[in-house]
Order: sequence, then structure tokens, then C-alpha cells
Amino acid sequence: MAPPQLSHEVVGEVEEVGAEATKFRAGDVVGVGLIVGCCRQCHPCKSSNEQYCSKKIWSYNDVYPDGKPTQGGFSSAMVVDQKFVVKIPAGMAPEQAAPLLCAGVTVYSPLKRFGLATPGLRGGILGLGGVGHMGVMVAKAMGHHVTVISSSDRKRAEAVDHLGADAYLVSSDAAAMAAAAGTLDYVIDTVPAHHPLEPYLALLGLDGKLVVMGVINQPLSFVSPMLMLGRKSIAGSFVGSVEEAEETLAFCQAKGVTSQIEVVKMGYVNEALERLERNDVRYRFVIDVAGSNLDDA
Amino acid sequence: MAPPQLSHEVVGEVEEVGAEATKFRAGDVVGVGLIVGCCRQCHPCKSSNEQYCSKKIWSYNDVYPDGKPTQGGFSSAMVVDQKFVVKIPAGMAPEQAAPLLCAGVTVYSPLKRFGLATPGLRGGILGLGGVGHMGVMVAKAMGHHVTVISSSDRKRAEAVDHLGADAYLVSSDAAAMAAAAGTLDYVIDTVPAHHPLEPYLALLGLDGKLVVMGVINQPLSFVSPMLMLGRKSIAGSFVGSVEEAEETLAFCQAKGVTSQIEVVKMGYVNEALERLERNDVRYRFVIDVAGSNLDDA
Repeated sequence: MAPPQLSHEVVGEVEEVGAEATKFRAGDVVGVGLIVGCCRQCHPCKSSNEQYCSKKIWSYNDVYPDGKPTQGGFSSAMVVDQKFVVKIPAGMAPEQAAPLLCAGVTVYSPLKRFGLATPGLRGGILGLGGVGHMGVMVAKAMGHHVTVISSSDRKRAEAVDHLGADAYLVSSDAAAMAAAAGTLDYVIDTVPAHHPLEPYLALLGLDGKLVVMGVINQPLSFVSPMLMLGRKSIAGSFVGSVEEAEETLAFCQAKGVTSQIEVVKMGYVNEALERLERNDVRYRFVIDVAGSNLDDA
Repeated sequence: MAPPQLSHEVVGEVEEVGAEATKFRAGDVVGVGLIVGCCRQCHPCKSSNEQYCSKKIWSYNDVYPDGKPTQGGFSSAMVVDQKFVVKIPAGMAPEQAAPLLCAGVTVYSPLKRFGLATPGLRGGILGLGGVGHMGVMVAKAMGHHVTVISSSDRKRAEAVDHLGADAYLVSSDAAAMAAAAGTLDYVIDTVPAHHPLEPYLALLGLDGKLVVMGVINQPLSFVSPMLMLGRKSIAGSFVGSVEEAEETLAFCQAKGVTSQIEVVKMGYVNEALERLERNDVRYRFVIDVAGSNLDDA
């Protein structure tokens, strides 16, 4: 995969529309996510799963067919095919909408696609970062009992008191992990580094699903009886489609889900990047490009 | 898991029924599969998934709550709770029914449970043994395009000409494997020894499922982008329920699916075991216990 980590959750106002653009008009508040191009011919494209097109074009650090680079959202303007643009619902703050365009849809899409969008399920969220915090809020809004699973006790108050998780499990607490064995319908695994899967497969009950979301090129492993005895699955999911981004926005607005963000100006971007590397953000920086003096950056 | 490899696909005639047994009467032709007991209290038991009960009792080489051993079907008679007994459909030969009680339901169950029982899908069967050959026939009967995947060319004629597979892939043929990349909706992986998963994950298209059926205690591995880019899953499945065994029998009778078997007498059992170890059977031995002189064995 390309590494488009930054400036792929973009919200702005339409300045002008092309002659054949029919979805939007000037003044609309719109968003762009991770993808700004696809082949439109393959099965994923034809079934509104363009994020799985092998010729997709990333919104940042990629190249258009005409050879021009894609530049993401750290810019005063961007030109995007309307197919990859979503309307921000009236009444939703632009800075609130931004993290839903990738982190939000990244958790909404698999919950829906893997049959996990029904109330009453018991879910686990492994890792409480940008995607994980959205996972807690989206799963709660779907009516799930949500357990945050983390490597330490450090984020317990944040998870339970602030984000509304129902339970908190420390993965190194063998007794607590054993007591929770077999109790979850799914675990959303947001950890982006190598880790064992078996402790989390053990938390799943019959038909449980472990949804892996971290890009990890060191092999992850399991023994087959861990899946066979319980008809469990390990599934992968990657962001979501434009259609699902629109659904995510509508869902979050209807359910009152609000992203946890820190709004900064462009002049702060290097400090923000340093803090990102230290995981020192709760949970997304949103850069107010329009409100920044771009000469500062 | 316990190792109940033998005498767990049992067909016979009811000799007598207990006072509270209502499902059967003397003279019925019935079958017993891998399981003869379960707790009846847990979620799997209450949802007719008793094969996933953690207190299930194997039909062979296990122990009943009263301490008596379970003895499987290499015997002139067995006593079984009616809950674990299925009726063999009228007109189905007993020796034909036997392999459906485990090998048959083992492939029927995941195809149904993972949403793969609809016509028109493209499936792969990895490994052409007792379970694999049933996989080809059941998948064909479901209306699938079936590719047998094997480590050598040795079984091509058997798979295509005899079992009716539509295609045959040799896993070491890199060009053929590359040409088939992304073309399958599922792969039923019956290989019971350690093997790489990535060649088979690569065969899957969007939403493809790799269903692992071999008990392998050496870890299997994958890199997460192989699942993420395509929303693919690795799933496990273990035999099937009593209800599903009944469905499998009815399905196979309706579709004219017949097991490939070699019927032998009990006096041949040791030679049969030796041939099994050499994989020299096409595809199941069925022992005609009633027709054997048990003093020979």
C-alpha cells in the first residue's frame, strides 16, 4: 500500500463546478476521503466498492493518469472528480466531519459489511487511537456493549468515562482476559504493529469475527483450531466506499456521534507531526487551512 | 481436540428404542456422526450448534459423564441419545450415507453458514481427500464453478473427469496461480498440515473467504494487507450440527450426490488402516460391520 497518512480527510466549500458536474454547486460544504480515482471497470468499482479497485488513486502522494501528483488537503484548493466527493450534512461542523471521512467510515464499513451493525452485540475495540476512538463511538451508537482492550491501564478513564465504553480490558491481565473468554461477537483490531492474535480470538464466542485494520507486513499467525472451534473468522477491511462515507456521516449526525479532535492552524503542522509520532493527540488533529496564514507553514 | 479419526460416520438399523425416545422406531435406518453428547445449556447448544459446545462428547475415544467410554461404530451395536441420531432418507444406501455424516456435513455447513450456498459462485477446493472430494461434489450440486487446487498434477483426471470439477490448478505452477488471482469467491482448505495461506488468499476476489478445515497446531500466517485489500476473511469451521447433517442428507439425495467409497469387511480393517496412512483410498473406506464375521477382526 502507498503511505497516505496525512491530509486525506478533507472538508471544504465548493468554489466552482465543472460543466458536467451535477452533484454539487458552489457553496456546498463537501468532503474528500482517501481516494480520488479508480478504474470504474472492475468488479469492486461496479459494485460501489471502489476502495478495493487495484487502480485506485490515493488523494495524497499518488499520481493521476495524466502524470500530475495528487496533493491531498494541505492546500488552499483541490480539484476532485465529483464521484469522490461527499456532501457534508447540513448542521454538521466541518471540523467534526473530517475524521469521519476516513477513521469513521473505516469502522462503520466493516461493522455493516460483516453483519455487525445490529443492536445488542458485544464488541471489542483493540487499540484506542484515531480509528479506535471512532470505533467505540460508532459501536456504542449502534447499540453495542463495547469493551476497549488495551495494553495498559492508562486509557481506562478515557475509554469508560469519556468515550462511553462499557468495559475495559488490559490485555496483559491474564485473569481478566480469561474471564472474558468467549464473550465477544467481534473485535475491531486497530493495532498497526505486529502482535499475537490468539488472545483476541479467545475473546470471541461462536461465529465471532476479528477484524484486522492495521497494515502489518510482518506475518500475523494463528493455529487453525482457534478458528475452527467456534466457527470464527479473521477478516480484513480497508477504509470504506464513497457511498459508505455518506452513510457514516448521516449515521453519526443522526446518532449524535462527534469526533474527538484538536483544531490547529497550519503554522502548527510540524509540531502536530511530532506529537503524532508520540501518540500525543486526542484523537485527531484537524488543520484549519482556510483560517491559516499559509506563509507561516 | 481429541483425535476421533475412525468410526464416527455410523449407519445402522434401530434395534430398540428407550421409553422416552420419540424420534425413531425399531427398524429405522439411522446415522450417528462425530458427537454423541453436549451440555445443552450453552449458547452453541441452545442455537443448534452443539458441535461447538465445549463439553461435547465425541462418538469415539471419549468418556460419558458416567465414566463409560464412547466406542464409535466399529461395533455390533451402539446406544445413542436420539438427539444425536439422524434418519437416513428412504432410498439412500446406508454405505452411501455414512460419509455424509461427517465429511459431507463438514463442507455443507460452512458453505451454508458463510453465505456461500447460492448458485453461480466460483469456489476452490484445496486438497482432494475424504473431505475435499465431498467438497467438489457438494459445491457442484450447489451450482458453483469449482476449481480443485492440488500440489501436483496427479489428481487432475480424477478431479475433472470423475468428480466433475470445472478447473484444476497446480499450486506450484506460478503462472497458472497468477492467472487465477482474484477469481474465486471462496477456497475450502482441507489440507491437514502446515502450509502457506497467501497463495490461496491471492486467488480470492472481493469479499472472498478462505475456510480452514485442517487441524494444524503449527501456526499459519498471513500479512494483514492480504486480507484488507479485498475485505477477505480466513474462517474456520468444524463438522456440522445434527440439524445440518439431516440437511446434508436431504440435499445430497435431492441433488443425486453420491459418495465415492470402497466397502470392505471388518477382517480388512488393518489393511485399510495401512492404506489410509498411504492415502491409498478413493475416498473413504466403509466397513460393513453387520456383514462381517467379527471374529475375523
